[in-house]
Amino acid sequence: MARPTPLSGFPEWLPEGRIVEQHVLDVLRSTFELHGFAGIETRAVEPLEQLLRKGETSKEVYVLRRLQEEPDAASDRSGQLGLHFDLTVPFARYVLENAGHLAFPFRRYQIQKVWRGERPQDGRFREFVQADIDVVGAGTLPYHYEVELPLVMAEALGRLREIGLPPVRILVNNRKVAEGFYRGIGLSDVEAVLRSIDKLDKIGPDAVADLLVADAGADVEQARACLRLAGISGSDEDVVDRVRSLAVEVGAQHDLLDEGLTELGQLVRAAQDRAPGVVVADLKIARGLDYYTGSVYETVLVGHEQLGSICSGGRYDTLASDGATSYPGVGLSIGVSRLVSRLLGAGLVRATRSVPSAVLVAVSSEEDRSRSDAVATALRARGIPVEVAPAAAKFGKQIRHADRRGIPFVWFPGPAEAGGTADEVKDIRSGEQVAADASTWSPPTEDLYPRVVAAD
Amino acid sequence: MARPTPLSGFPEWLPEGRIVEQHVLDVLRSTFELHGFAGIETRAVEPLEQLLRKGETSKEVYVLRRLQEEPDAASDRSGQLGLHFDLTVPFARYVLENAGHLAFPFRRYQIQKVWRGERPQDGRFREFVQADIDVVGAGTLPYHYEVELPLVMAEALGRLREIGLPPVRILVNNRKVAEGFYRGIGLSDVEAVLRSIDKLDKIGPDAVADLLVADAGADVEQARACLRLAGISGSDEDVVDRVRSLAVEVGAQHDLLDEGLTELGQLVRAAQDRAPGVVVADLKIARGLDYYTGSVYETVLVGHEQLGSICSGGRYDTLASDGATSYPGVGLSIGVSRLVSRLLGAGLVRATRSVPSAVLVAVSSEEDRSRSDAVATALRARGIPVEVAPAAAKFGKQIRHADRRGIPFVWFPGPAEAGGTADEVKDIRSGEQVAADASTWSPPTEDLYPRVVAAD
Repeated sequence: MARPTPLSGFPEWLPEGRIVEQHVLDVLRSTFELHGFAGIETRAVEPLEQLLRKGETSKEVYVLRRLQEEPDAASDRSGQLGLHFDLTVPFARYVLENAGHLAFPFRRYQIQKVWRGERPQDGRFREFVQADIDVVGAGTLPYHYEVELPLVMAEALGRLREIGLPPVRILVNNRKVAEGFYRGIGLSDVEAVLRSIDKLDKIGPDAVADLLVADAGADVEQARACLRLAGISGSDEDVVDRVRSLAVEVGAQHDLLDEGLTELGQLVRAAQDRAPGVVVADLKIARGLDYYTGSVYETVLVGHEQLGSICSGGRYDTLASDGATSYPGVGLSIGVSRLVSRLLGAGLVRATRSVPSAVLVAVSSEEDRSRSDAVATALRARGIPVEVAPAAAKFGKQIRHADRRGIPFVWFPGPAEAGGTADEVKDIRSGEQVAADASTWSPPTEDLYPRVVAAD
Repeated sequence: MARPTPLSGFPEWLPEGRIVEQHVLDVLRSTFELHGFAGIETRAVEPLEQLLRKGETSKEVYVLRRLQEEPDAASDRSGQLGLHFDLTVPFARYVLENAGHLAFPFRRYQIQKVWRGERPQDGRFREFVQADIDVVGAGTLPYHYEVELPLVMAEALGRLREIGLPPVRILVNNRKVAEGFYRGIGLSDVEAVLRSIDKLDKIGPDAVADLLVADAGADVEQARACLRLAGISGSDEDVVDRVRSLAVEVGAQHDLLDEGLTELGQLVRAAQDRAPGVVVADLKIARGLDYYTGSVYETVLVGHEQLGSICSGGRYDTLASDGATSYPGVGLSIGVSRLVSRLLGAGLVRATRSVPSAVLVAVSSEEDRSRSDAVATALRARGIPVEVAPAAAKFGKQIRHADRRGIPFVWFPGPAEAGGTADEVKDIRSGEQVAADASTWSPPTEDLYPRVVAAD
């Protein structure tokens, strides 16, 4: 077999990279659990018709067929399965399927791979890990969750600062503000306005103004007003006052606008208190998806804005509905693979070694291997990760074996008849070698497990 | 949308079941890391031709196609991707692809989902989690790893005893013993003999004897000898002596037999010392797959033998090869989903609650929600999982909310002006309510996180 080459869009890490990814996942999980989110996993597949309920994603879906099955005509979709392309669609299905067994509001986190058949680019993969949190209510869901959830993500991402993650900026907007403002100035095709505004960063204000006139039925004055709204941003309540002034100036009046501004003000106030400098109200954030009905969120890594959003979401009034009950929710999703690939690719972070072992137990002869195994067992019983040398080679070679793997300590068992009293352990970085007893010796805490640290 | 129904073969757990599964995964991961195995993940897909290198698995593969792609004729397989059906094929590819960056012998664990398009049955799924450990060498791999790896699994599964996992029995055999014995009595179609012996539990000795005569070219005497070998089992070295006696009796002489018996004896001896009563030499264990060349392993849950093997594997001389170098390995794979579904389905185990939160902070009025948020933040800062009540309902209702979710403590913030000095916390199981300070109070350790325990 020839040496295989990577598949574009399907990232894999070497062991050291996986240590970084695992650390990120552990930090996310523990933060979510501290906030009372229950972990769930859903199957990787959903019925195709379920995945295609929103037509715009149809390009991305991977469809499955068993090899021995007759290839289905593309038109016959009944019973076909596809890989999920996000964790929201499966979660909505899970909630409906298990509603009778869940206590609402239901707080859940979910960390899994998703698949999209898109053209791979920097930070955009065909297989990637998402980490989602959502709160979903039965019938109703109070607004305060729209304040709480981005702050949970701010805390999670903040805890990654110490391993070298750049600071994040969570950009928030509120659909009610946008919709109320547009309607207030006489624009009724809200979706078309949002779609145009969403292109602001890509095509610039002049082209967006043209789009608003061409697609959203705006006149030049209305287009200008929309662009002025989109230009407002800030991290304190002043931002709300500026929207209000603009609304007065252009004559935008609507109950939705008032409601949205009250909510946005509440979020900005709480964020200033609990995550100062992280949350920024940004009135141009539109989010393409049409099911958001309140707050919307995007998150950029400061200094890496061109990577795109690494954590997005919002409020949706109908995550799922079984006819009798509808389930409103609010949630955000971190693009873990995008984050980790940037951390590794930009050399921001490293693991202190690529294997768990803190100690390599040397083997003096194959007949004495059981003596080395016993040392390893004694150390492991006290929580120290250990491996035993692969062969009873010369000690110099065994030390090089440890060195190549980044294992900091090599243990030399004394003769069996000494019963462990003649054991010695060497820190191969300093060369220092001391007498040691496997029932009491421990490595320094910082050497116990590989750590993930900011690169120098 | 109507209430969806589960997909047969794609298991999902409620939050409490996921806590059990997560605990099992955590125990496996920490055991593997204590033994110096580095964690990796591979992508879910492999090129179809890679998955089909061994023809017999072709029935099980899920093939992927992007929805907008033209459906490929089944005959055109070039460039097609399939979901991996185990973690060994992807690991072999990973080793070849990254050989230049890995230190050999390379110890890795890998815990991921795999997919097989098989007919679902009890304990047999279309999507399931496997947890694998392997050691792979470049060029050579000493025998002692064949002793070490099943003992790592014995330790991992042994650590699950405390949550109610029944004891396990690891059945071991050695291909060299079987092959040497068969050749020694004049049977050269070793594969055919192994395939027949593999059916012993299913069809019984008489039918196997017929098969040996019909398919493996055996005469009645040879068939009887094979069955007598298959009938030998035991957990001490006596088992080796019994095979030797049988070999003398039937005139089976072969170097491979001697070599295999020396190895098997070494394994049984080490196992008696390090995992007494767990490892049993069982000469009928054949394992269908033809790439094993030394030790083979199967594992049954005592009292649940009909569930089939929950942990299998063996030694293969050529896990992978790039022409210049071949990579021998030894590994075992735990069927985590099979294990967890039995633990849950047979009611052997339960979680002490279904949510992470140890404390629900009550809210006296929506205006005072920030006061409750501050208490939650203070508790979380000290590692206590907390959520805040969804609404400022009557306290009785908030307590019932906690009760329904199994949250043991409800915190009542005092008036803001008291600055936390009038806070109280109630253990809703005992009803005991005491004054408490969020900067010092902690729940008892056993209440901090949900625990997984043996069911009564």
